[in-house]
Amino acid sequence: MKYSNFFLPTLKDVPSDAEIISHKLMIRAGMIKQSSSGIYSWLPLGLLVLKKIEHIVREEQNRAGAIELLMPTIQSSDLWIKSGRYDDYGKEMLRITDRSGREMLYGPTNEELITDIFQSHISSYKDLPKNLYHIQWKFRDEVRPRFGVMRGREFLMKDNYSFDLNEEEAKKSYDIMFKAYIKTFIRMGLTPISLRAETGPIGGNLSHEFQILAKTGESTLYYDKKLESLNPENIDPNELQSFYAAVDDQHDEKNCPIQKKDLKISKGIEVGHIFYFGTKYSEKLNAYIQDQDGKNIPVHMGSYGIGVSRLVGAIIEANHDEKGIQWPTSVAPFKLAIINLMSDDQDCATKSMEYYDYFMKNEIEVILDDRICSVGKKLSDNELIGIPFQIIIGKRDLKNGFVEFKNRLNNKVEKIKVDDVTNFINNKLKI
Amino acid sequence: MKYSNFFLPTLKDVPSDAEIISHKLMIRAGMIKQSSSGIYSWLPLGLLVLKKIEHIVREEQNRAGAIELLMPTIQSSDLWIKSGRYDDYGKEMLRITDRSGREMLYGPTNEELITDIFQSHISSYKDLPKNLYHIQWKFRDEVRPRFGVMRGREFLMKDNYSFDLNEEEAKKSYDIMFKAYIKTFIRMGLTPISLRAETGPIGGNLSHEFQILAKTGESTLYYDKKLESLNPENIDPNELQSFYAAVDDQHDEKNCPIQKKDLKISKGIEVGHIFYFGTKYSEKLNAYIQDQDGKNIPVHMGSYGIGVSRLVGAIIEANHDEKGIQWPTSVAPFKLAIINLMSDDQDCATKSMEYYDYFMKNEIEVILDDRICSVGKKLSDNELIGIPFQIIIGKRDLKNGFVEFKNRLNNKVEKIKVDDVTNFINNKLKI
Repeated sequence: MKYSNFFLPTLKDVPSDAEIISHKLMIRAGMIKQSSSGIYSWLPLGLLVLKKIEHIVREEQNRAGAIELLMPTIQSSDLWIKSGRYDDYGKEMLRITDRSGREMLYGPTNEELITDIFQSHISSYKDLPKNLYHIQWKFRDEVRPRFGVMRGREFLMKDNYSFDLNEEEAKKSYDIMFKAYIKTFIRMGLTPISLRAETGPIGGNLSHEFQILAKTGESTLYYDKKLESLNPENIDPNELQSFYAAVDDQHDEKNCPIQKKDLKISKGIEVGHIFYFGTKYSEKLNAYIQDQDGKNIPVHMGSYGIGVSRLVGAIIEANHDEKGIQWPTSVAPFKLAIINLMSDDQDCATKSMEYYDYFMKNEIEVILDDRICSVGKKLSDNELIGIPFQIIIGKRDLKNGFVEFKNRLNNKVEKIKVDDVTNFINNKLKI
Repeated sequence: MKYSNFFLPTLKDVPSDAEIISHKLMIRAGMIKQSSSGIYSWLPLGLLVLKKIEHIVREEQNRAGAIELLMPTIQSSDLWIKSGRYDDYGKEMLRITDRSGREMLYGPTNEELITDIFQSHISSYKDLPKNLYHIQWKFRDEVRPRFGVMRGREFLMKDNYSFDLNEEEAKKSYDIMFKAYIKTFIRMGLTPISLRAETGPIGGNLSHEFQILAKTGESTLYYDKKLESLNPENIDPNELQSFYAAVDDQHDEKNCPIQKKDLKISKGIEVGHIFYFGTKYSEKLNAYIQDQDGKNIPVHMGSYGIGVSRLVGAIIEANHDEKGIQWPTSVAPFKLAIINLMSDDQDCATKSMEYYDYFMKNEIEVILDDRICSVGKKLSDNELIGIPFQIIIGKRDLKNGFVEFKNRLNNKVEKIKVDDVTNFINNKLKI
């Protein structure tokens, strides 16, 4: 993509209502634009990142055997009245009356609808286990939306629902998802910390939340330091669930079960939550299955959420410096930026285009900064946007046969011979 | 994907409220499930097709130079009041009052919001032309939703918006989209017919609608037969726009400008609509740009829609027989079905798995029907679902060293030697 053809409106000034760093940086980097309180348009750069995150989430769900479908955003109130949550949910649920006077709502979550789909089509233990998920926009009418996409009203969530014959099988499904979650977050360059959690309004008796470490995080976490260095290929959910981890109001220094030398304290941001809630919804919504003995029993369910749009903010909170964003390569909107400092210089323009054409042809996600603007603005915009690998082409260096390579993740700059650039970058991208 | 792990609930009975063939087939093939009037859940098979269509639309938009972003589903009424459409739109717009008493709505289209995004960030002719699009769920509160996803209330639409300096430039953007639309529909195995259209509530003075041919279509079309055999690589929008095409209430036999031998009459279904409406929204919403002379002028706009979810129904209307769907390969949920007629026979199971593993490894989209059910149900379900290429493995044939290959597009069946299957299918898929 050429910058001149793209739509990437960076801003110099920090918006006054943006309190946290990810919100400020997302607006400054032209990733989002607020359309009304807690509701955002995703501008092209923001959408690229959102899709990268969505893609990783989807891939790990598919690998874990979950099947994707898509439920609508607008639901009838009927099933929510049956489940008892229509009244429970309160004002956070966006309620709508359609032209025929029917009570509708914008789904804040989908336990009711998925249970109804399940019970319409599955009635035998032979079809179990099933794990169905979707990635869909949700709405929660927060009383005070803030922190940009971290606590917006309209937000993108991956939610799935497992259906099993009994508690033992359901726990297996729970553990498969637990493992998939850890892998998902590690792939995004994050450090996930899993914590035993309250089940709250979803119900049930087993729940974990997943926080990711970020210096600017909202919670303070106390946890076994082993949780910081998990090997994604070798995760034992049962072992992980036994490691100590607590948020500050749960943590009691005197009764902490692990030694001080093994205890780490860091800030975190919640990005996922999983629940096993047994037969709470299946009983109310009539999702019964025939077991091996021909007996009809309510199906055992769990639900599992990842805040896809929230993760965009969370990843920035975990990966930035005073100059802007530092995208982990797996979620970066582009892997490589080619920055032509002198767009009006023929040699710089030719060399930039030569690199650009090469990487485009080799299907590397590359952006060419071909704007006509000051060197200062060009460099600071690119620091703000935070593409991990940057090739900077200046007139003097080029005359001497060099360009600069900048690694935005550690801000190290090195000079590379013009003829070595493609090999150099190809090697970097293999890592 | 193995059928036993998938969620593909086929139905034998035709739902009573389904009037048209695509609606009946989509429900019977387990592609959708109605959740409330005019609102559907997309079950896994339906979602696969929806994504295939979305992917083709996106690819042709990107090739045409349009830039993707994503606007939210819920909008504030403010901009709609400014544009004058808040009252105009009437009851078809789903109106919502949030917890703070603000008037919101579920976007039926996005001229207002995109004009606002444009005017916030672009102010110079140097940044033109721009063409921004998104693929997002819309809601229109139809008084009588029907025809399944063809006239649902919640539906997926690709809409984009072009911004140009003047009418001449805007016409160029219009023609680029016109061409992209023809290519998009041809890639889906459809025959698009473009017709000059009324601009209606969107406004403006230039508009075309795109219908696709289907025997069961809703409109009767009269058109120059040349429109039936377009070469997607060689489309001249101006030439195309000059060809005769009319719906029945516009067509006048006596005054028809082309000879009877060149005139074709067929049924069609509308799947796209494009508009050039000049400065209608830019004036009202203050989207002014500085031209080459430093003068501030309102930007010239066009908008362009493709009914992505509607296309799923339209493609089925154009591609089915009495037994079920016949997916064009470009939008098929799977390219290949391996149908093991005897799941309890060891040889059949082994051979099926051998083929399945081979095609999975070679990244061919394949579904293995490994269900334990009658041969009759297996064959009829697969005719219903309509995967274009089918390998049918029976006990007797296999003993003699053969399997059956069925081309669902023409229903021809031929026997293939077991060792020739992979080469045979690889050749088919190259076509």
